[in-house]
Amino acid sequence: MDYSTMCPKYEQAIDLLGKKWTGLIIRVLLDGPKRFKDIKAQIPDMSDRILTERMKELEQLQVVRRTVYPEKPTRIEYSLTEKGLALEPVIESIQAWGEKWT
Amino acid sequence: MDYSTMCPKYEQAIDLLGKKWTGLIIRVLLDGPKRFKDIKAQIPDMSDRILTERMKELEQLQVVRRTVYPEKPTRIEYSLTEKGLALEPVIESIQAWGEKWT
Repeated sequence: MDYSTMCPKYEQAIDLLGKKWTGLIIRVLLDGPKRFKDIKAQIPDMSDRILTERMKELEQLQVVRRTVYPEKPTRIEYSLTEKGLALEPVIESIQAWGEKWT
Repeated sequence: MDYSTMCPKYEQAIDLLGKKWTGLIIRVLLDGPKRFKDIKAQIPDMSDRILTERMKELEQLQVVRRTVYPEKPTRIEYSLTEKGLALEPVIESIQAWGEKWT
């Protein structure tokens, strides 16, 4: 790969992943659709406000899909889109590096 | 992979990569040893202060090595350590995702 100049597509990708909590949220959603409280359960240090903000950003970027089930009480689930699921190799490579080097 | 619980080693790895500019700095250094100004040239929006801060953090984490050449004027170069070079598959997977999805 050519690393001699910066690549705007890389910049955009790292801009997404390099946002605090986002890399953790995506990892949680790789386990399957989750409710807000299930995501929180795996990332207890993140505030509700920040999680709400991140989920909106990820929805806007079409990485995450929000599905509302018209039950009583209403059930809302978050899941990865195709674009989001395509991040699995990235998450795996970060995991592999973490296991070896941290 | 088991995504049903968070992994501390993953958290540590994403903590490093998920810091603003760090993912860009590592990509630049994959091209080989660089001086401060060469890194800046590829990431012009980053301030000198922040680059200095990030390089200190990356040195402390043993991801980056700082070499001082006793010439006149003194030459200082930054390069990736073995731990830093091991991030290449991560950077590549982010690049691949960026090319397909951004």
